[in-house]
Amino acid sequence: DFLQALNEVKPAFGVNEEDLELCVRGGIIHYSSTIEQILRDGSRFVKQIAEDKNTTLLSVLMYGPDGSGKTALAGTIALRSKFPFIRLISPNEMIGMTENAKIGYIDNAFRDAYKSPLNILVVDDLESICDYVPIGPRFSNNVLQCLKSYLKRVPPKNKRLLILSTTSSYTVLRQMELIKCFTNKIPVPNLSNITELQAVMEKMNFLDEEKRQYIVNQVSNNLGTDKLNIGIKSVVSNVNTARFDDDPINELIDLMSEIQI
Amino acid sequence: DFLQALNEVKPAFGVNEEDLELCVRGGIIHYSSTIEQILRDGSRFVKQIAEDKNTTLLSVLMYGPDGSGKTALAGTIALRSKFPFIRLISPNEMIGMTENAKIGYIDNAFRDAYKSPLNILVVDDLESICDYVPIGPRFSNNVLQCLKSYLKRVPPKNKRLLILSTTSSYTVLRQMELIKCFTNKIPVPNLSNITELQAVMEKMNFLDEEKRQYIVNQVSNNLGTDKLNIGIKSVVSNVNTARFDDDPINELIDLMSEIQI
Amino acid sequence: DFLQALNEVKPAFGVNEEDLELCVRGGIIHYSSTIEQILRDGSRFVKQIAEDKNTTLLSVLMYGPDGSGKTALAGTIALRSKFPFIRLISPNEMIGMTENAKIGYIDNAFRDAYKSPLNILVVDDLESICDYVPIGPRFSNNVLQCLKSYLKRVPPKNKRLLILSTTSSYTVLRQMELIKCFTNKIPVPNLSNITELQAVMEKMNFLDEEKRQYIVNQVSNNLGTDKLNIGIKSVVSNVNTARFDDDPINELIDLMSEIQI
Amino acid sequence: DFLQALNEVKPAFGVNEEDLELCVRGGIIHYSSTIEQILRDGSRFVKQIAEDKNTTLLSVLMYGPDGSGKTALAGTIALRSKFPFIRLISPNEMIGMTENAKIGYIDNAFRDAYKSPLNILVVDDLESICDYVPIGPRFSNNVLQCLKSYLKRVPPKNKRLLILSTTSSYTVLRQMELIKCFTNKIPVPNLSNITELQAVMEKMNFLDEEKRQYIVNQVSNNLGTDKLNIGIKSVVSNVNTARFDDDPINELIDLMSEIQI
Amino acid sequence: DFLQALNEVKPAFGVNEEDLELCVRGGIIHYSSTIEQILRDGSRFVKQIAEDKNTTLLSVLMYGPDGSGKTALAGTIALRSKFPFIRLISPNEMIGMTENAKIGYIDNAFRDAYKSPLNILVVDDLESICDYVPIGPRFSNNVLQCLKSYLKRVPPKNKRLLILSTTSSYTVLRQMELIKCFTNKIPVPNLSNITELQAVMEKMNFLDEEKRQYIVNQVSNNLGTDKLNIGIKSVVSNVNTARFDDDPINELIDLMSEIQI
Amino acid sequence: DFLQALNEVKPAFGVNEEDLELCVRGGIIHYSSTIEQILRDGSRFVKQIAEDKNTTLLSVLMYGPDGSGKTALAGTIALRSKFPFIRLISPNEMIGMTENAKIGYIDNAFRDAYKSPLNILVVDDLESICDYVPIGPRFSNNVLQCLKSYLKRVPPKNKRLLILSTTSSYTVLRQMELIKCFTNKIPVPNLSNITELQAVMEKMNFLDEEKRQYIVNQVSNNLGTDKLNIGIKSVVSNVNTARFDDDPINELIDLMSEIQI
Ligand SMILES: Nc1ncnc2c1ncn2[C@@H]1O[C@H](COP(=O)(O)OP(=O)(O)OP(=O)(O)O)[C@@H](O)[C@H]1O
Ligand SMILES: Nc1ncnc2c1ncn2[C@@H]1O[C@H](COP(=O)(O)OP(=O)(O)OP(=O)(O)O)[C@@H](O)[C@H]1O
Ligand SMILES: Nc1ncnc2c1ncn2[C@@H]1O[C@H](COP(=O)(O)OP(=O)(O)OP(=O)(O)O)[C@@H](O)[C@H]1O
Ligand SMILES: Nc1ncnc2c1ncn2[C@@H]1O[C@H](COP(=O)(O)OP(=O)(O)OP(=O)(O)O)[C@@H](O)[C@H]1O
Ligand SMILES: Nc1ncnc2c1ncn2[C@@H]1O[C@H](COP(=O)(O)OP(=O)(O)OP(=O)(O)O)[C@@H](O)[C@H]1O
Ligand SMILES: Nc1ncnc2c1ncn2[C@@H]1O[C@H](COP(=O)(O)OP(=O)(O)OP(=O)(O)O)[C@@H](O)[C@H]1O
Ligand SMILES: [Mg+2]
Ligand SMILES: [Mg+2]
Ligand SMILES: [Mg+2]
Ligand SMILES: [Mg+2]
Ligand SMILES: [Mg+2]
Ligand SMILES: [Mg+2]
Repeated sequence: DFLQALNEVKPAFGVNEEDLELCVRGGIIHYSSTIEQILRDGSRFVKQIAEDKNTTLLSVLMYGPDGSGKTALAGTIALRSKFPFIRLISPNEMIGMTENAKIGYIDNAFRDAYKSPLNILVVDDLESICDYVPIGPRFSNNVLQCLKSYLKRVPPKNKRLLILSTTSSYTVLRQMELIKCFTNKIPVPNLSNITELQAVMEKMNFLDEEKRQYIVNQVSNNLGTDKLNIGIKSVVSNVNTARFDDDPINELIDLMSEIQI
Repeated sequence: DFLQALNEVKPAFGVNEEDLELCVRGGIIHYSSTIEQILRDGSRFVKQIAEDKNTTLLSVLMYGPDGSGKTALAGTIALRSKFPFIRLISPNEMIGMTENAKIGYIDNAFRDAYKSPLNILVVDDLESICDYVPIGPRFSNNVLQCLKSYLKRVPPKNKRLLILSTTSSYTVLRQMELIKCFTNKIPVPNLSNITELQAVMEKMNFLDEEKRQYIVNQVSNNLGTDKLNIGIKSVVSNVNTARFDDDPINELIDLMSEIQI
Repeated sequence: DFLQALNEVKPAFGVNEEDLELCVRGGIIHYSSTIEQILRDGSRFVKQIAEDKNTTLLSVLMYGPDGSGKTALAGTIALRSKFPFIRLISPNEMIGMTENAKIGYIDNAFRDAYKSPLNILVVDDLESICDYVPIGPRFSNNVLQCLKSYLKRVPPKNKRLLILSTTSSYTVLRQMELIKCFTNKIPVPNLSNITELQAVMEKMNFLDEEKRQYIVNQVSNNLGTDKLNIGIKSVVSNVNTARFDDDPINELIDLMSEIQI
Repeated sequence: DFLQALNEVKPAFGVNEEDLELCVRGGIIHYSSTIEQILRDGSRFVKQIAEDKNTTLLSVLMYGPDGSGKTALAGTIALRSKFPFIRLISPNEMIGMTENAKIGYIDNAFRDAYKSPLNILVVDDLESICDYVPIGPRFSNNVLQCLKSYLKRVPPKNKRLLILSTTSSYTVLRQMELIKCFTNKIPVPNLSNITELQAVMEKMNFLDEEKRQYIVNQVSNNLGTDKLNIGIKSVVSNVNTARFDDDPINELIDLMSEIQI
Repeated sequence: DFLQALNEVKPAFGVNEEDLELCVRGGIIHYSSTIEQILRDGSRFVKQIAEDKNTTLLSVLMYGPDGSGKTALAGTIALRSKFPFIRLISPNEMIGMTENAKIGYIDNAFRDAYKSPLNILVVDDLESICDYVPIGPRFSNNVLQCLKSYLKRVPPKNKRLLILSTTSSYTVLRQMELIKCFTNKIPVPNLSNITELQAVMEKMNFLDEEKRQYIVNQVSNNLGTDKLNIGIKSVVSNVNTARFDDDPINELIDLMSEIQI
Repeated sequence: DFLQALNEVKPAFGVNEEDLELCVRGGIIHYSSTIEQILRDGSRFVKQIAEDKNTTLLSVLMYGPDGSGKTALAGTIALRSKFPFIRLISPNEMIGMTENAKIGYIDNAFRDAYKSPLNILVVDDLESICDYVPIGPRFSNNVLQCLKSYLKRVPPKNKRLLILSTTSSYTVLRQMELIKCFTNKIPVPNLSNITELQAVMEKMNFLDEEKRQYIVNQVSNNLGTDKLNIGIKSVVSNVNTARFDDDPINELIDLMSEIQI
């Protein structure tokens, strides 16, 4: 049951759980082996930073399309680590802050992390933290330079830090020369075929097997292919919308067929 | 009678009715089935946010050409919901504000919404809220980033929020990466043919059937087609101007034939 | 006599007459039927805003080349209305003001207008109010956004407002998306032929009929055409210069022949 | 004697003579009939503003290449007017001022002018007053807008104003839309042939007729033409340098031949 | 043993050792003769500034790809000098500083250096100190101008200064005209072949000779060449990761084969 | 002996000698007749400003490639003048100053100069004073405008001013329209052939005639030509480096052969 996945990620003691739990509150649906692989890679980095003396800093970038589940996965890895210090740095916390206030906020989080022996910082949506917008393009260079320094900065003696960052703009980060600040990178893909869609419906207990099969067949027919390219976030949202609808079956078929366009 | 449409949208208790009523004070004329469909879609979202526990945030974008009726329709949907908290965020309220004041204003509206269990925020004319102008182009990136965060931000526990936004610059919003912040989108088209024009005249009790038929024929002749592409706002304004004129019939024919050019 | 035109436009009671009178102090010379038409259109809008209950806002744009007489005509229409509230918003009043002060100034004028039942605002030289310059181009986006809001904003209950704006940069206003804020537009053309020039000379009592005919013939000869394209402002100025000169006939011929180049 | 030209321009009473005299302290050498013509045109405008009641504002632009003598000629015309109010607005007076201080300075000068019945303002080097630099290009839009308003602004009742402006960047002023603010324009050319050079040497009492003829012949030989294109400012400076030199004849020939390149 | 290299660089007395030691704490692995050559060149400059009276300023630029070891090598040269004044100027120390604060920081470091007879300043990552980002591009011109002056500025009498700077953006520095401020330049290359990789593994005591040979063979096979182009920083990091892994041999082969892509 | 050249330039009384002496402390090596010519031209301007009553301002631009010796030559000319007021305006004195502070600094220097009857101002590295950087390009327009005014501004009565400016960016100055502010210009070239190199080595007493001949032959061989294009600054630096080296002959050959590339 995918709701249990959510429950088993609560940490032992005081970290800012609430914020992180909002990130993962839809839970993690294991709709393909890639999801398992990402979580396994994540827990390997958690172990490495905890146990390997030669590694005091790991900065991992989780990148993928909009709504592919990056934030939920990063949050899950962080919460499962049960490290004493886990913190989320997110654009949501910095709405309306001046550049300086943002830098102060980030600075604070890292300095706090440098005080504890074993730390995870989830730095969500890097391009939004930098106020990036493609028109121009414009962004806060000061915040960017701050991130650049901290992503590479070795923590002081006897402190270890795992940074889990997310982005849906890999190319932008490369142009900003942020990519080269990471020691490791994990891709987070969209759903890629109707089998994965079927798995999501099943895990969400949406209707019965036969109806799910019918939906999948119809979507496949409409699209003229078995391939999909849609984020888990939209799929979950569409299933919820359909559940609420008078005619859930056709509503979901419509929503899934339309999005692909 | 289209004036009744206006009267039936008054909410049960304290929301900022006045501002919203200014938006819809011309009433909604049901000149085609599309108008019905838009209002039905709107009330479906209202029901979904009120009743479906899995959906705590819906952000709906109503987009279409200048004067196609977006604001009046969004206002009507909001007022009909009879939700305890309905609020309008509009560029008109922010004239001359600094970027920070605007962000504070928006921030306030959302924070207020997060306090009430069931909320609607009408965010009117997104590109104007961002001070967008195509020369340059220029806009307030800080306000944009603030909107980006709030359009995606899940409300706190037990709070539900329906956001109804409008824009006449879909392409600009896509370039700003605002489009991907919406969970749903509703197109609001212009009047597309002379039959719809005839319906408007009738609902406005403009002259008698025969004269309306004559007007429509003449416009069709002048334009060389039955197709139109003009917003309801201009049509209503032209009918009023013609009503006031010494020769209403020919005045309206002239105005409608000229606009098409 | 064209000087009488000037005298008959004084309003009944307190409006800022002086500023507006400076705008029209050269008077209106009726050198062609277009001038009559423009003034007729203007007084029609004045009547409509005063009498038609369905129309609470009319925003009229008077556009044409430099010195074609836009400001004098807008001022004349306003002064003739004898409305209790008439006000001029002009770049001349805002020299050296900060963006904020300008917005405050505009804001004030509109708020004042919203207090009186029947109002005219003359908003002169829109592109200059926005500090527009084609190099760059540069302009004040904040002032522009302010104007955009106010040109479309419906006055509060029981208040009516006629806005008369002028511009010599129609294209720029379109790029700024200001054009779509107007409900009506009136073109103000240059003098287009030598007959109109002759009419101006006559109305100004410049020399006798024979000499005026001679001038017009010579100018036509020099230019190789009967067509002209010159604003009334320059024509009046040239006639005054010639009057002062030792050889008024040839001086005026020279000035008129040269300008055309 | 050209030094006398300088002496006869002193005004009757209190104007800021010193600044203006610095502008013309090299005097005016009458090396061609164009110089006479420019001064005649200037004094005609002086008379017109003083005597013609229909003309309360004349704004005259004197334009030409670097060092062609614009400032000295404008200053001479102003000083000869013997008007009670004559004032110089020059970039030299505004070094290091903020935009606001510059606008205040200009504003002050015009307001002062509006107090006196008969005024001349010499506005020197318009593009420099606007801090124009072709890289970018960059300039102060605020100062530009201020100038735009004042160059067109009609003085209050019973006040008359003649504005004499100079520029060596006609094209830039056109791009800034400053050109259309002037009612009149006077071109100020460079020396255009060796006869004019010979006239300058003679008026400056440089050597004797034979040697001047020799110089002119040599320069003509070196350049392969009788045509020149050099400002009076450089010519005067070169003659002074040559005078000081051990071999004045060949030094001047060298300097004049080299500049042409 | 490469760990000894680290130990022998501690200076005799008070310099800011800690910061510099963080830079070199991974030690210097002598994986090729180029490393020796760079250190020899460095110590030659150290001797020259100390002993040659005609040389009071040497500014040396160490440039090369990301992670090629520039900072560690510059730090090693500085620490080995045993000069009384050694100081690190690094972007890490200037996070969130305003432009002015940064300039003050740099200014301070140089003024301190001018007080001591024999000094080394390590100026790390020049382009980051200038907040350079390729999008735009943007950078702090004020900080750049400050560096430009100080890199060329001769110290006061009887003071000598060796500046060791690093950059991974040679081209950017040339565009900024910083390159011409240096008296000397040292390239710091990446590992260029698998023999150097084998040397690194050996110096790090990673597995035994046979297994290292196997790894190198496999990597060479996978890449289809013996050539490499990877910085020492990544190689050391990969070896550490592999050491920690369950299957170190294949993990390292994978990591090395993948990076090359 | 070239060291004597340095000693004979000390002025009789109080000027800011120290700063200027730092500029020329490497002395002037007379490696070609061009050097003599430049110093002769310089002293001619010194005499002219001191003795010719018609010349109250001379602004001379010394331009040439990086390190060609401009600053040392300007400083030498200034110090040899023995004028009562000599002052250096250099970017080194303005590190970290705001635009306003820089303008104040320049303003001060000129105002001081206007108080003394006979003055020299050395304005070093004009483009750096303006904070020019080719990326963008960017520069301080305010400082530029200030320089523009002062370079052309005639000193008050009975004061005379010689301005000696340097630049290595002639093209940039032309784009900034600074070039036209100068009354005179002096090019300062690089060493252009190996004979000049030999002269430098001889004047610096570097080795004996035979070895110098050998070096020059080898460099000529390596380069495949007798032509050079290198500034005196680099040549002096390379000779000093070679002097310090174990194998001075080959070291200098290497350094000279490499630079040419
Ligand atoms: N296998 C899964 N992986 C990730 N998220 C999942 C998965 N299954 C269900 N979810 C749910 O889907 C949603 C994914 O949204 P999330 O915000 O993590 O995506 P994202 O890629 O970070 O989006 P964005 O690009 O907008 O930042 C979450 O609500 C999460 O609980
Ligand atoms: N069917 C209709 N739909 C929408 N508006 C209608 C309709 N019938 C009449 N109206 C009236 O038409 C006007 C539409 O103007 P509205 O401001 O809503 O358009 P808009 O698309 O928001 O314009 P803009 O692009 O300028 O924001 C309102 O006054 C409204 O009362
Ligand atoms: N028929 C006319 N129409 C307009 N102005 C006239 C007419 N006859 C005479 N005039 C005079 O001509 C002048 C026109 O100048 P005005 O400033 O109104 O032109 P404008 O088009 O607003 O110029 P600008 O483009 O510079 O704003 C006024 O002084 C006015 O009194
Ligand atoms: N006929 C003349 N016309 C103008 N100036 C003359 C004439 N004869 C001599 N001069 C002298 O030549 C100089 C012209 O310089 P002036 O500064 O007026 O030129 P300018 O065109 O304004 O230069 P810039 O383009 O630098 O502003 C003055 O010193 C003036 O006294
Ligand atoms: N031969 C070597 N040269 C340089 N560094 C070495 C060498 N051997 C091992 N190292 C280690 O490799 C790492 C090199 O990282 P360093 O930060 O110096 O590289 P960098 O080129 O400055 O990187 P960046 O481009 O990110 O500034 C250091 O930890 C250093 O201790
Ligand atoms: N003939 C010479 N001319 C100029 N400088 C010389 C000459 N002979 C020796 N020198 C020495 O060479 C150096 C020239 O450096 P200087 O700073 O004057 O060059 P620059 O052209 O101003 O350099 P930059 O382009 O960096 O400003 C000085 O140290 C000077 O003492
Ligand atoms: Mg996310
Ligand atoms: Mg709207
Ligand atoms: Mg006007
Ligand atoms: Mg001038
Ligand atoms: Mg480094
Ligand atoms: Mg120099």
